[in-house]
Amino acid sequence: MKPLESLRSWMASEGLQVTIIPSNDCHFDEYVPARYKVREFLSGFDGSAGTLVVTAAKAALWTDSRYFLQAERQLAGSGISLMKIKMPGTPAIPQWIASECEPTATVGVDGDLFSYDDFAAFETELKPIKLRTFTDPFDMLWQGRPSLGENPIVLHKEEYAGRSVAQKYRDVTARLAVDGPFCLFLSACDEIMWLLNLRGGDIEYNAVTLSYCLLTDKGITLFCRKENLTAEAAAYLASQGVEVRPYGEIDAALAALPEGATRIVSNNCCSINKYSIFRRGGHVIPDPTVGGTVAMLRACKNPVQAQGFRKAFLQDGVCWVRLLKHIYDNYDSGTLNEYGITQKLLEIKSGSENYQGESFEPIVAWNANAASAHYSFSDEASSARVNGGGFLLMDLGSHYPYGTTDTTRTIFLGDKEPTTEQKEDYTLVLKGMIALAQAIFPAGTRGCQLDILARGPMYRTGKMYFHGTSHGIGQWLCVHESPQIRMEYSPITLQEGMIMSDEPAVYVEGGYGIRTENVIHVRKHSQTEFNTFFDFETLTLVPIDRRAVDYSLLTENERMWLEDYNKRVYEMLKDHLTDAESAWLLNYIG
Amino acid sequence: MKPLESLRSWMASEGLQVTIIPSNDCHFDEYVPARYKVREFLSGFDGSAGTLVVTAAKAALWTDSRYFLQAERQLAGSGISLMKIKMPGTPAIPQWIASECEPTATVGVDGDLFSYDDFAAFETELKPIKLRTFTDPFDMLWQGRPSLGENPIVLHKEEYAGRSVAQKYRDVTARLAVDGPFCLFLSACDEIMWLLNLRGGDIEYNAVTLSYCLLTDKGITLFCRKENLTAEAAAYLASQGVEVRPYGEIDAALAALPEGATRIVSNNCCSINKYSIFRRGGHVIPDPTVGGTVAMLRACKNPVQAQGFRKAFLQDGVCWVRLLKHIYDNYDSGTLNEYGITQKLLEIKSGSENYQGESFEPIVAWNANAASAHYSFSDEASSARVNGGGFLLMDLGSHYPYGTTDTTRTIFLGDKEPTTEQKEDYTLVLKGMIALAQAIFPAGTRGCQLDILARGPMYRTGKMYFHGTSHGIGQWLCVHESPQIRMEYSPITLQEGMIMSDEPAVYVEGGYGIRTENVIHVRKHSQTEFNTFFDFETLTLVPIDRRAVDYSLLTENERMWLEDYNKRVYEMLKDHLTDAESAWLLNYIG
Repeated sequence: MKPLESLRSWMASEGLQVTIIPSNDCHFDEYVPARYKVREFLSGFDGSAGTLVVTAAKAALWTDSRYFLQAERQLAGSGISLMKIKMPGTPAIPQWIASECEPTATVGVDGDLFSYDDFAAFETELKPIKLRTFTDPFDMLWQGRPSLGENPIVLHKEEYAGRSVAQKYRDVTARLAVDGPFCLFLSACDEIMWLLNLRGGDIEYNAVTLSYCLLTDKGITLFCRKENLTAEAAAYLASQGVEVRPYGEIDAALAALPEGATRIVSNNCCSINKYSIFRRGGHVIPDPTVGGTVAMLRACKNPVQAQGFRKAFLQDGVCWVRLLKHIYDNYDSGTLNEYGITQKLLEIKSGSENYQGESFEPIVAWNANAASAHYSFSDEASSARVNGGGFLLMDLGSHYPYGTTDTTRTIFLGDKEPTTEQKEDYTLVLKGMIALAQAIFPAGTRGCQLDILARGPMYRTGKMYFHGTSHGIGQWLCVHESPQIRMEYSPITLQEGMIMSDEPAVYVEGGYGIRTENVIHVRKHSQTEFNTFFDFETLTLVPIDRRAVDYSLLTENERMWLEDYNKRVYEMLKDHLTDAESAWLLNYIG
Repeated sequence: MKPLESLRSWMASEGLQVTIIPSNDCHFDEYVPARYKVREFLSGFDGSAGTLVVTAAKAALWTDSRYFLQAERQLAGSGISLMKIKMPGTPAIPQWIASECEPTATVGVDGDLFSYDDFAAFETELKPIKLRTFTDPFDMLWQGRPSLGENPIVLHKEEYAGRSVAQKYRDVTARLAVDGPFCLFLSACDEIMWLLNLRGGDIEYNAVTLSYCLLTDKGITLFCRKENLTAEAAAYLASQGVEVRPYGEIDAALAALPEGATRIVSNNCCSINKYSIFRRGGHVIPDPTVGGTVAMLRACKNPVQAQGFRKAFLQDGVCWVRLLKHIYDNYDSGTLNEYGITQKLLEIKSGSENYQGESFEPIVAWNANAASAHYSFSDEASSARVNGGGFLLMDLGSHYPYGTTDTTRTIFLGDKEPTTEQKEDYTLVLKGMIALAQAIFPAGTRGCQLDILARGPMYRTGKMYFHGTSHGIGQWLCVHESPQIRMEYSPITLQEGMIMSDEPAVYVEGGYGIRTENVIHVRKHSQTEFNTFFDFETLTLVPIDRRAVDYSLLTENERMWLEDYNKRVYEMLKDHLTDAESAWLLNYIG
């Protein structure tokens, strides 16, 4: 039986007329372990965002504009309709369900995959159609469903983390400032890894293990696959007074919390199942910290962590110079392609001391391929040959135990000169990147207030990019974490120690994509009678290509910034490079 | 009997243990007619913001940091405690009431002066203490209470307004898009004036008359002091199908609205009294337009209005040049003082064709006096002599039937050179003003996203100003209207036709204040495949003083902007000036 038919049989046996299958796992992480790619298994669509809705007769998949083309291709012949989110005429999921079902129908969702907020919203919008939860039936329906594997859970040493778990426990409880018994329930894996100085390997590119955590007035209890803890990690947790219990015992532990203890959910992504158990027997209060107590403590890197990031970016710079030299040395041979460059990159990186793998899927995109912000080629054969001249965009990042990198450079290759439009686009992106990097701002400033600095220069040509300008970066964790700098409002303020990207871009469909990304670190700039002011330290140490710079568009200040930056890159890297590499770099930065 | 004692007797007779007296009138306008200055009458404190709370034994007044010094002085000996808002240890009003009263107490508020939202918030926070409304008792308690007067209500001609009332009715109803019977209740006087092409004179500087308005599927009904309508205005309203009823009949009219008609309140400032009547017999829905349907239509000036503002700013420029010339011609004589300059200004303005008075209280502040953002001298004797060198800040605006102006200039006078700090401060303010004036931004941009452009340059020196960067400007209405550009989030987006200020500043306590304010007009810049983009037209035509400019801090682009701006001012004004004035201006702009 085909997957959808198996699901429908199961639905009939459960008395469900509809099921909604989201893309996330129980922890609402950005990426999902293979075991939880149920929506992909059922629909064949493997984009990162999409919601599948199945009725007895029909099925439809909602996804956003990033995935329209891919979804059309992958859904062809499946009988699943594509629902293009935010396009005119596309119904919302509850509307569509109402049009397909009797008012007496029942919709089922996996109560561990639906957040409390989403469940409540759907419940209201679906009325009179009923919404109820079920428990993951896919072990039965999905032949050969991947297991979570036996990825070790390792210690993240204090020499990198900068603080012990006991210290973090005190930091968190001080910030929560609850009187009497309380329990903070954590279900975001990267928050738990940060709190417990652990790292895992359950999710590609993200060094986390699937886990839950309860932090109470008595101490910390971790719920994970205990057997995967290394001896070192287990001993460390014991030394810090952390109790470790099996992953599957979280529901029982939530149910057994002391009556009356104040309950706090660390963020909005608590599932309806867990929330329903958690709120029994005690009042749930919102997390007192905007953005989440644990998430904000994690976002503000301490000096030990910041030093680790500096080291990681030094190694990142060395790898980049090797890769760039390889590209320039071999460009004329006509043998380069996107695949080969990616392989070369991984080869270079694998020789970098303490390298723990890439922090996201590498992007190597030639000309028009770079016009989609998250391009990846599917295999060697389909990867583009890098010749004929143009822009090569590379967005690459690595994990080291002490820091995670994320760097984008766009270089102009070939004998032909860049066109006026290409130079203007490249230079305006660079101006935006420099403007944000040079910002000085008072305490209390939110990301959306600084966003215009990165975007503003490009607006002059009527162009804009549709992604955020900046995201926080985890330390050997998730490369995307809070805070963000975006056009959209978020109440999170920028605070000392935050490490984040600075990545304005421009995408010309059918032409090219240009993105220049440095990573910046919020530091104290001054303390005056008016306020505390912050500025950014630039951590990235990768030369910026000058071939497509139109100097007439740069101010004197920007020209000097660029020159000083490339000089600093050379000075910082030269002792870590071979003579040939060092000479190449000196020549490259002019 | 003293006012507070009369109030307490009345409270006792009504069974009230506490009353709360806010600063606003029934229409929640920025300024309040003398008749409604009850808080000032009772407390002696005449600042624009403050809330008085009176119990049988005590009284306390809450005000913000702008007024701490003034309130301390004015409350001395009154027995009224000063409560400094946002200072450590200052209780919130409900807290203070709870600490002063029995839980069985009843608090009374004038139901026409408390907004629905505030009433609901206080009601919750005061529990178990009860909150109830009363009707204005001050005709009885306040001997010689001012009447509203017989200020005429005049026609605002279509040749200035650009649209007839009938057209605006269609604009508003189209934007509301309600099916079936509905009623939009307007209680903000400037919204009503705009809608009905009327202007009044009940509030100093604001050309409004106290009024209410109901806009329904059947038409418009205005509630005002009918007898004050000029014959021309009355005839115009009749020609547009507007029904006019006495001001006092609004409650009866609200009560008589058809059962079931959809009710819409135009903004958050509907009083609890009116709201309670309004919501009987029909569902109240929120205004579908962010910022309010009428307020946003009013904020976006049509081309006829924009042309009127250009004319007003031309006349404003001429007056400013005359005033500046007067100051420079007489500075050396040592006879200038703040009062005299203000008188000269009013003399010059009164000779300006179609002049309808100032749009706010003129600010003429010498050196340290300008360090408080809203300085005004109390009389001629206390006004500062303008000599010895330094910064003179002048913030002046006028009403014309076709446009309202608001211009701030800071000029450096005297033989001594400005200090390095003075030049830096002046130049960074100027850079901020120019940066905002030159912004280009896509549709959907909110004010807080552009704010950093005006503030950013000054952050380099660890300085900042604590007021907004920009406010919308009404056409012969209120000089402060939406939208705003501030650090704080507001969902209102900047739209074509909006006319607003651009006024970064710096205030050095005990030293000086510097503010440079132009008025800018949102216009379409480009329409591309990416978005619609806007930029600003600068409307103000007043030369910018160059004496304190540190050119080394300006980019080439900023230097050119300044030069071009002053040249344009000269070109636009020269035919409207005497030869001597024109020669003076040419010399002044260098």
